[in-house]
Amino acid sequence: MDQKSLDALKLHQDHQGKLSIESVVPLKSKSDLALAYTPGVAAPCIEINADPEKVYQYTMKGRLVAIVTDGSAVLGLGNIGAKAAIPVMEGKAALLKTFANVDGFPICLDTQDSDEIIDAVVKIAPVFGAIMLEDIAAPKCVYIERKLQEKLDIPVCHDDQHGTAMVVGAAMINAARFLIKPLNTQRVVISGTGAAGSAICRLLKALGVKTINAFNKQGIMTKKKYDDYDFVLKELLDEGIVDSIDNYTADSLATLMKNADAFIGVSAPNIVTVDMVRSMNSDAIVFAMANPTPEIMPDLAIHGKAAVVGTGRSDFPNQINNVLVFPGLYKGALEARLKVISMDTKINVSKALASLIADEDLRSDYILPDIFDKRVTPTIVQAVVTGK
Amino acid sequence: MDQKSLDALKLHQDHQGKLSIESVVPLKSKSDLALAYTPGVAAPCIEINADPEKVYQYTMKGRLVAIVTDGSAVLGLGNIGAKAAIPVMEGKAALLKTFANVDGFPICLDTQDSDEIIDAVVKIAPVFGAIMLEDIAAPKCVYIERKLQEKLDIPVCHDDQHGTAMVVGAAMINAARFLIKPLNTQRVVISGTGAAGSAICRLLKALGVKTINAFNKQGIMTKKKYDDYDFVLKELLDEGIVDSIDNYTADSLATLMKNADAFIGVSAPNIVTVDMVRSMNSDAIVFAMANPTPEIMPDLAIHGKAAVVGTGRSDFPNQINNVLVFPGLYKGALEARLKVISMDTKINVSKALASLIADEDLRSDYILPDIFDKRVTPTIVQAVVTGK
Repeated sequence: MDQKSLDALKLHQDHQGKLSIESVVPLKSKSDLALAYTPGVAAPCIEINADPEKVYQYTMKGRLVAIVTDGSAVLGLGNIGAKAAIPVMEGKAALLKTFANVDGFPICLDTQDSDEIIDAVVKIAPVFGAIMLEDIAAPKCVYIERKLQEKLDIPVCHDDQHGTAMVVGAAMINAARFLIKPLNTQRVVISGTGAAGSAICRLLKALGVKTINAFNKQGIMTKKKYDDYDFVLKELLDEGIVDSIDNYTADSLATLMKNADAFIGVSAPNIVTVDMVRSMNSDAIVFAMANPTPEIMPDLAIHGKAAVVGTGRSDFPNQINNVLVFPGLYKGALEARLKVISMDTKINVSKALASLIADEDLRSDYILPDIFDKRVTPTIVQAVVTGK
Repeated sequence: MDQKSLDALKLHQDHQGKLSIESVVPLKSKSDLALAYTPGVAAPCIEINADPEKVYQYTMKGRLVAIVTDGSAVLGLGNIGAKAAIPVMEGKAALLKTFANVDGFPICLDTQDSDEIIDAVVKIAPVFGAIMLEDIAAPKCVYIERKLQEKLDIPVCHDDQHGTAMVVGAAMINAARFLIKPLNTQRVVISGTGAAGSAICRLLKALGVKTINAFNKQGIMTKKKYDDYDFVLKELLDEGIVDSIDNYTADSLATLMKNADAFIGVSAPNIVTVDMVRSMNSDAIVFAMANPTPEIMPDLAIHGKAAVVGTGRSDFPNQINNVLVFPGLYKGALEARLKVISMDTKINVSKALASLIADEDLRSDYILPDIFDKRVTPTIVQAVVTGK
């Protein structure tokens, strides 16, 4: 095991995880107890019973997010189950608190059946103001998110889909702005059509991209393979989000990337070569976000003449990571008491995040603000709350 | 609304509830993020996936209690539902933290169906080290607790049953000790055979009480009414915990209380008169715990010549409240990694709590330590951990 992993284990062991649940009211005297516990606590109970909306006034619901997983698609580790997923969910809660002062709690479910997941989340929903789904495998994550949103009157958002998509959206807006190459003139090629990939396609389309072609484990996406696709991919074709490629000589990513303007990878390590990047149009954008090893390493992409390069990694410029978005997104959604996080909200968040880089600061290696940029959370909150 | 209720509402509104979920690890730099979040977090995930027991080492599970309710029997307020129950569950978590440094989290369920409750709790169990059931109506609370304990490998304990019973157990031990009137010589009359009442009967029997007679909404408990009883009451009779009264002239609590040595009330306000207390044996014990108004007010019980009087209230001596027990109980259960909270543990906790009052301090109005007595939690923890 490398030193970083050993350090990470020590950190987790020393603190026995990463979260603590604290009382925010004093409980030092009988009179404290008489207000916070019995008999005083009866007063907010009675008020909420008479008017359920007052739950936002007298309890933590309005600042509390359930971070829900079934452990079926954790980090790049795959299906490691509920218990092994806890460190990631605790980490998300720690980030929510640190970056947005929002309270998050890990719900790691001992089932991977979609309807059982939906059922359990609906049952525990009363205490939460929003549901953040994490690390649930595609395509069931899409089904679960939709069903939960139908059943609950609080926002439900799958971070791996939309958190990632909003950051990619901001990165694309700014890359296009830097290159003076409008999104509606670009042909975007996406590799990977799982949770993140499918949501990125939808958001880029909504942001004005006209042509999106996709590649996945089944090869180039085309209507000819329609019957082999899951419902998420079928919808992308049905709704014209992804453009079917009907004639090609070789069923390869290399074929698709020829004369593309942007490549977005949320798929697998090292599947893009320098030559494939070189075959793209001039001023090409390459966001290779497979983690920890991207589809192509940034130096190679630049060697292939890519004009703007981003990855998911923190050790290269232009880190595209959903932590830029989710703390502010949830803070805003809770503040505005949103019932749904709509496509309009996602567009507004991408635009707001992009707007943080002033014209004079925009560079090929600075298209997104840093994760510790203090402007990020309030800007996203404002975009969510004001709807613009 | 009275001033105390207004103060309680203000407290809850000012703090928007009573809990906060904090990060216990620093997240101030990219290197912090690299340990607690990506990529470092993968290390504990991988370790736990390889050996699920390590979840206690690298996550909060080993110090985290789910405080679960369906809102069906909250405080003395009745069935007010999941949302209106949140302030009570937050309060329990605040007490766990304040008195035992244990992390508790409210799970307020949007269902009152026993099997759905069981199902939801099993699903969310991976992140928790223990399950504390609260304010669930009898008799289903007994069924839910048993089924959950069968299905889970962490302790499950319904506080209203066993927390209350353990404090009553301690109070009875010390009242008997003060009066020099051994428990096995006493006839105990209990009014109320719901969650608390049925558990008190079982624990008192285990502590050596030979004769327990019970009264409830159906009158004096007798085998003649067996077919009308729920499964909890049937078991109390079947197992000889409660002694059936087969011949009586009037089916009243007054009948039962004649020549009783101890009265324990977990039932309804003002149902015991001075004369009923006066009809008890000499050196009578009266624990009238209906909340907020007891079965008989302490001054009236003393007027009826009761020798030791206790209530659930904090404004009279001998407060019998489960907060004396549950923080230490859960801290001990988590530390010892108990899988079940057994009858032996409950007996040990009652004895340990009682032992805190030294012979020379024992008085009719001081049979239990104060809630703020710093010895309470460590003493209970030790009793739970060492099993004696």
